[in-house]
Amino acid sequence: MSFKPIDYLPYDFANRRHIGPSPAEMDDMLKVVGANSLDALIDETVPQSIRLEQPLDFGKPKSERELLHHMRVTASKNEVLTSLIGQGYHGTVTPPAIQRNILENPAWYTAYTPYQPEISQGRLEALLNYQTMVSDLTGLEIANASLLDEATACAEAMTMAQRISKSKATAFFVDENCHPQNIAVIRTRAAPLGIEVIVGAPEALEAGRVFGALFQYPGTYGHLRDFTDEIAALHEAKAIGIISADPLSLTLLREPGAMGADIAVGSTQRFGVPLGYGGPHAAYMATRQQYARSMPGRIVGVSVDSHGNRAYRLSLQTREQHIRREKATSNVCTAQALLAVMASFYAVFHGPEGLRAIAQRIHRKTVRMAKGLEAAGFHVEPETYFDTITVDVGLLQRGVLQAAVREGLNLRRVDDSKVGITLDERTRPATIEAVWRAFGIIMKDEDFRPEYRLPEALERQSGYLEHPIFHMNRAETEMMRYMRRLADRDLALDRAMIPLGSCTMKLNSAAEMMPISWREFSQLHPFVPADQAAGYAEMIDDLSAKLCDITGYAAISMQPNSGAQGEYAGLLTIAAWHRANGEGGRNICLIPMSAHGTNPASANMVGWKVVPVKSAENGDIDLDDFREKAAKHADSLAGCMITYPSTHGVFEETVREVCEITHAHGGQVYIDGANMNAMVGLSRPGDLGGDVSHLNLHKTFCIPHGGGGPGMGPIGVKPHLVPHLPGHPVTGGTEGPVSAAPYGSPSLLPISWAYCLMMGGEGLTQATRVAILNANYIAERLEGAYDVLYRGAGGRVAHECIIDTRPFAESAGVTVDDIAKRLVDCGFHAPTMSWPVAGTLMIEPTESETKAELDRFCDAMLAIRDEIRDIEQGRIDRDNNPLKNAPHTMEDLVKDWDRPYSREQGCFPPGAFRVDKYWPPVNRVDNAWGDRHLVCTCPPMEDYAEAAE
Amino acid sequence: MSFKPIDYLPYDFANRRHIGPSPAEMDDMLKVVGANSLDALIDETVPQSIRLEQPLDFGKPKSERELLHHMRVTASKNEVLTSLIGQGYHGTVTPPAIQRNILENPAWYTAYTPYQPEISQGRLEALLNYQTMVSDLTGLEIANASLLDEATACAEAMTMAQRISKSKATAFFVDENCHPQNIAVIRTRAAPLGIEVIVGAPEALEAGRVFGALFQYPGTYGHLRDFTDEIAALHEAKAIGIISADPLSLTLLREPGAMGADIAVGSTQRFGVPLGYGGPHAAYMATRQQYARSMPGRIVGVSVDSHGNRAYRLSLQTREQHIRREKATSNVCTAQALLAVMASFYAVFHGPEGLRAIAQRIHRKTVRMAKGLEAAGFHVEPETYFDTITVDVGLLQRGVLQAAVREGLNLRRVDDSKVGITLDERTRPATIEAVWRAFGIIMKDEDFRPEYRLPEALERQSGYLEHPIFHMNRAETEMMRYMRRLADRDLALDRAMIPLGSCTMKLNSAAEMMPISWREFSQLHPFVPADQAAGYAEMIDDLSAKLCDITGYAAISMQPNSGAQGEYAGLLTIAAWHRANGEGGRNICLIPMSAHGTNPASANMVGWKVVPVKSAENGDIDLDDFREKAAKHADSLAGCMITYPSTHGVFEETVREVCEITHAHGGQVYIDGANMNAMVGLSRPGDLGGDVSHLNLHKTFCIPHGGGGPGMGPIGVKPHLVPHLPGHPVTGGTEGPVSAAPYGSPSLLPISWAYCLMMGGEGLTQATRVAILNANYIAERLEGAYDVLYRGAGGRVAHECIIDTRPFAESAGVTVDDIAKRLVDCGFHAPTMSWPVAGTLMIEPTESETKAELDRFCDAMLAIRDEIRDIEQGRIDRDNNPLKNAPHTMEDLVKDWDRPYSREQGCFPPGAFRVDKYWPPVNRVDNAWGDRHLVCTCPPMEDYAEAAE
Repeated sequence: MSFKPIDYLPYDFANRRHIGPSPAEMDDMLKVVGANSLDALIDETVPQSIRLEQPLDFGKPKSERELLHHMRVTASKNEVLTSLIGQGYHGTVTPPAIQRNILENPAWYTAYTPYQPEISQGRLEALLNYQTMVSDLTGLEIANASLLDEATACAEAMTMAQRISKSKATAFFVDENCHPQNIAVIRTRAAPLGIEVIVGAPEALEAGRVFGALFQYPGTYGHLRDFTDEIAALHEAKAIGIISADPLSLTLLREPGAMGADIAVGSTQRFGVPLGYGGPHAAYMATRQQYARSMPGRIVGVSVDSHGNRAYRLSLQTREQHIRREKATSNVCTAQALLAVMASFYAVFHGPEGLRAIAQRIHRKTVRMAKGLEAAGFHVEPETYFDTITVDVGLLQRGVLQAAVREGLNLRRVDDSKVGITLDERTRPATIEAVWRAFGIIMKDEDFRPEYRLPEALERQSGYLEHPIFHMNRAETEMMRYMRRLADRDLALDRAMIPLGSCTMKLNSAAEMMPISWREFSQLHPFVPADQAAGYAEMIDDLSAKLCDITGYAAISMQPNSGAQGEYAGLLTIAAWHRANGEGGRNICLIPMSAHGTNPASANMVGWKVVPVKSAENGDIDLDDFREKAAKHADSLAGCMITYPSTHGVFEETVREVCEITHAHGGQVYIDGANMNAMVGLSRPGDLGGDVSHLNLHKTFCIPHGGGGPGMGPIGVKPHLVPHLPGHPVTGGTEGPVSAAPYGSPSLLPISWAYCLMMGGEGLTQATRVAILNANYIAERLEGAYDVLYRGAGGRVAHECIIDTRPFAESAGVTVDDIAKRLVDCGFHAPTMSWPVAGTLMIEPTESETKAELDRFCDAMLAIRDEIRDIEQGRIDRDNNPLKNAPHTMEDLVKDWDRPYSREQGCFPPGAFRVDKYWPPVNRVDNAWGDRHLVCTCPPMEDYAEAAE
Repeated sequence: MSFKPIDYLPYDFANRRHIGPSPAEMDDMLKVVGANSLDALIDETVPQSIRLEQPLDFGKPKSERELLHHMRVTASKNEVLTSLIGQGYHGTVTPPAIQRNILENPAWYTAYTPYQPEISQGRLEALLNYQTMVSDLTGLEIANASLLDEATACAEAMTMAQRISKSKATAFFVDENCHPQNIAVIRTRAAPLGIEVIVGAPEALEAGRVFGALFQYPGTYGHLRDFTDEIAALHEAKAIGIISADPLSLTLLREPGAMGADIAVGSTQRFGVPLGYGGPHAAYMATRQQYARSMPGRIVGVSVDSHGNRAYRLSLQTREQHIRREKATSNVCTAQALLAVMASFYAVFHGPEGLRAIAQRIHRKTVRMAKGLEAAGFHVEPETYFDTITVDVGLLQRGVLQAAVREGLNLRRVDDSKVGITLDERTRPATIEAVWRAFGIIMKDEDFRPEYRLPEALERQSGYLEHPIFHMNRAETEMMRYMRRLADRDLALDRAMIPLGSCTMKLNSAAEMMPISWREFSQLHPFVPADQAAGYAEMIDDLSAKLCDITGYAAISMQPNSGAQGEYAGLLTIAAWHRANGEGGRNICLIPMSAHGTNPASANMVGWKVVPVKSAENGDIDLDDFREKAAKHADSLAGCMITYPSTHGVFEETVREVCEITHAHGGQVYIDGANMNAMVGLSRPGDLGGDVSHLNLHKTFCIPHGGGGPGMGPIGVKPHLVPHLPGHPVTGGTEGPVSAAPYGSPSLLPISWAYCLMMGGEGLTQATRVAILNANYIAERLEGAYDVLYRGAGGRVAHECIIDTRPFAESAGVTVDDIAKRLVDCGFHAPTMSWPVAGTLMIEPTESETKAELDRFCDAMLAIRDEIRDIEQGRIDRDNNPLKNAPHTMEDLVKDWDRPYSREQGCFPPGAFRVDKYWPPVNRVDNAWGDRHLVCTCPPMEDYAEAAE
């Protein structure tokens, strides 16, 4: 009969859902680009010399449904027990309203880091709430908007202490009661910086010998101790006192600030953020006002906009790697914004009374459990505690631990005879009874009279979370609307393209995101026995194998939980290899001028000296300069760090030569994987000569940016470097760890794995090709109106393009900032500004954007060029024009309008949606004002009342 | 030691999350209300005579976490097999982007029915897409925006046929190939209306004997047949031809319109809507333009706003029960909006090519499966088919069905020897092999050459889904943004109170909503063997027991899938009881004037005559009139239908007397449960004298309104009525079914169950009390500015209050409509308008709203009163003022402003959020224009191009 099967694959995720332009749109775009075919375009763009020989082949790609089924099967191989292991990770109850409205809501998870404050007021407010919460709980004036995990936060505190301490000492003291992974990461970080780490009991502290000291509170075995005297001694010796504190315990216990601490760090995981087998979670850091400018990480602050209205933005942006580059001792960049937002909503949701009640319940349960053990004759340590006790069971240890597992519990194995138990918000009476049974005790969790075993001297005296935001009505209706209102103030990928060069803001598909909510992925403690995480192991192995195929490396370490962390881990690996070869003295790192700011910072962190390499006229690495410097430092050359394709958005033909030169002089090649989205399936860093690369899974592999994190920066290495990859106290390895958890933030990995499985090798390659097409399409459409800087030999750009806005400074008094803010009026997040070249915009559309959206953006950019021309030709005032006044708000519309252009022109430039217009809640934010008047917690009530209508 | 446990219950869902006002807020509100305590207020409001004696006790309420755990345990008792049972229910793949962004997104699910078009343009567009899809696929000009299920849609088509047919016949023909539940529901509906139902083979149709005929396409056993001749014969006899068609099959097969059908109905379940053990799903109905005004259900249409811009709204609202009341033969009210929206996005997501490809894949698989069976010697029927075949296996039937279950498959048991198999979108090669194994065939699903067994004569000749909306770029990025844009155009509970009297728009909490996405609830076919649905059974039993406790009834039927359906089922139950008593002639139903419009319509549907009862001055039932009419009709009194507390928002003291009078004259009492939110825990309809009540689970029990459905209207009955509750061909019972599935829309029940489990008896009662407090607070705050009509004997209102706006018509030329639209400017959905009294507003805040939100609303209402006073006192023009021009749009702001009030005043009246302002996308919609120019499908391309910027 006549029915013909039609040529349409409804479940083709790669081409139908992930890749934006349809085949017909691609044909149109190729015409504009002037290429005969996509193949031809790629041939003109990607040098033949670097092309992959074998196409990627991952078998038949899965449909969304097949993927979810596969994920279910994998997830079911993880066994979810109740983990009472503690050690910085705790069971917690994520309020369903937060799970659904934040974690599972694209308006929150697809947002970018709030560098453009006008379109980020919602998440900036949530992060300010977070900082206020941290500041209140720790009793320190200023907090940042999260660090990667508690262990790295401890290490950051150490290097910060070194920066701010006036002591000349080079040693750092670490309380032996710190969590083992905190100590281990500190050791990793200290070694290349020449810091001696002294681990001991607090009473052994010799304040004069150190520039700082870190104490854990409560201690990893449960001890509670007042560190006031130790810190006083440290201050006497001009050293810095640091306390790593569980924030929930601080609702009952004397806060670090009250003990005199200069810095407090810790994890906010137990504030509603699922365990996730180790992450992602938000670590916090707080310090005294005087040290604000030395604090690593992002800090949200309060400022004003051009109309004098209150506005939030990232403050003190000009610190750290941005200005210090070669001198930085921190490379913190991606933080854990989404998780910090969750934790802050958890605090808003419960308020101080709720948090206190939760802490008390946990403590009372711990006391009950301990009393049961004591009644049965066990010796419980310490005498006073919050939620953690240790029981010396001697030879019974193995039996108790195994019995616990049979009861569905994981307890902590402390040395060879002790068992640690940490209770949490999820502990129920049945849990306590199960613990007792594991100890051979048959008893009922009777209704004990509430009892407390907290030291009276450590009772918290001060209030906290007194700001109205933590006392708003906590009805779910109210909370839901608050979350919605904040979400609506922001512009994220769910509303518009975010064409950020080097940041690869692509689709984070719903199917990819779903599994991370499943308890089999979200409810695993990072230190469970391996046999309970078989699903994770299978996923990590398979994803690693695929990433090896994609990169040409031999092995992957999933440990680094950000891109910058990946750089650092990669360089550490190289350094360890040099040491193993007896060449530990190699410490020179060649880095091109155009490198990411994190590159030199990471090199510093491994104790290397950065030698910058010039760029040639066309933006490429100046090969002569490179050769000369490599030769000059041949004896001490540790390696080079390059980005491919270059940060100028070009496939440099000379990359193999650069690698060869480096190798010839004894160095190793680090290829930064930030631009991997231009390479997958076409070219492999390993084949080009790279020895190590990190991959930004939150760029190329679809993990959402979450408004500034989470990220994942696993590294791939060549075979000779495999033995030198990061290890971990729990999982082993010869090197120290760089992150708190063995696999970094593993609960994100289902996203990247799902992406690979649904795309298949061919789909991944096609995504790369279309990313290149989309960038070239934009370059063609804008060329003429703007100068496109840097093109490859074939006249093409890679997956991004840089346009020059410098001429307009003189011709029209228009800055790159003006254009960026004007794009807000058009309904867009601005491209990357002034990087890698000041006064330029770097545009990366990714493969996920459709032709219609690219056109909307190009129309906006061309209209802006016309507006600039109006200024250039005197048709409109240089200081009072749509660019200078951008972004325009609804307030502008309501007020009297005395501008030399119409409301229509001001508020609805080409690109702007008419009905669905995005309105920034504030006018242009004054950054300098905010830095001069530093306020990094929620403004006081009076301001609040004023701001209210 | 000094630590004191604090008196705060962080996990108290009832008081902390569900109930809006905090204890402190309640104290303030009681002061305003002038009551000494909440107890005192309740005593003043709810007559002692009707109070519940025993407090509700459901044991300890569960926290959100405990609830989710309990749900997991219950869910795990449902066994998810692959059901190939067909019979109108099919496996389907819900695209994850639709699941996450529609089904799980409060912006969609908390919306109300789009009666206020200015704040509903998003879902109106989605529903217009749905109608366009239905109209295209069926080949009929006009479609409605969903009916409850396919079986009721068939019944609705029958009564519609009777309305529009010019034949004098009173019989209706039903193709024996219709799904059994369709035939059964038709029989139920036909009987009280005196329609004779003739079931037979199409060839047996005697067109002259009937006013209409219904055919199933494809037939329930798989047959494909051209009904052109039968329909021509019907037309010859002035009768109506109806086809119930699977919309997916219509992508390949000749459409009903092309066969001459006058009406087409069917289910859109397989367009991405999960099985859900029977519902909710959207049924469709389409008809010829000439019959538009006779079509039941809601129809979205295109109109213009006051500026002439295109705007959508519900059209032809003045049909059916609204005007006809006593003559209505349909009571359709709540539809399946959320599911229709999902189905429409599924069509947009796949487009015509995708749908066609999916249909072809299913068909090819069916052919392959059939060929395998034939090769093994089985006789497969029919010869041509789409996705369903029947195999006569004689005595092997039991063995085959059991073997199938062992293979993880449910096949259909057709009579005593046949097995039916229906394939779907989820069928994989392994499924086909498993089917074969169940038949004892060991074979591999080889790569057969594509083959088709569709009759050539039935090949579809016409195009469909040619509108650009079905050809938009289908990349997920684009789809996600489209869903977000539409959501943003609407105002739902996630942004503001929806104070709709009698509609009880309360919190639909995240924890309540989560389980409905779980596969154990969502992936069950309604006709699976009972042992596979043990979790459902447990839930239905427990929820029924709780609802019995709450209402004072003996049993609950979950079958009615809307409130109106519940009324109908309740009256049917009464009628059956009368018949069983030999009093089948009783057919008079007393209904107060103020009743819901569905009451008389439902009474008509069971063949009763409605006798209206007057209202007294104070809004109560006029007891004398009631007594008189009851006495007058004593011999034929079937019953009465009353609402309690009354639709005037008052607890009438005379309710027991009304019931006694009715009983004394042989009638039964139907108490409408629409206002149950004012009674739970305080009073029980069963105790007052009611014999039957329906409960709107989508009002009182937290099922979200979904923008106009789904709903659930289970009925409770006294013991004597239990035997007469609706039955079902699958689950048994002596009476016929009212819905397609035995338990209506059971996948919604986890929501109501969760609500009861987390609230506990005390929480439910407190919710009622606070709902009453909130209403009285509003009444007090508005009194003086507005007249509050109707208060109870104690001077209190119940859970809602009615304010009078009639005086303003003369004093200021202001209508209730003007006030409603002005409230949009303030950021609110209007209260219920002109019901039960024309020219009034009925305000129901529910217990979920906080004091702050109530105040925001009252401030807005008071400011509106001031604006009215400005008109009254001549300070502003009667025709050009903020009320007449409301709602104001962003367009108004952009344009030149020549109004006698400021932009500020126009757009930001008290109540309106400043930064988070909700902007309606259109100005006031012209309903009359739209009805005059009826367009109920997506406007043509040219219009589209014009509308685009």
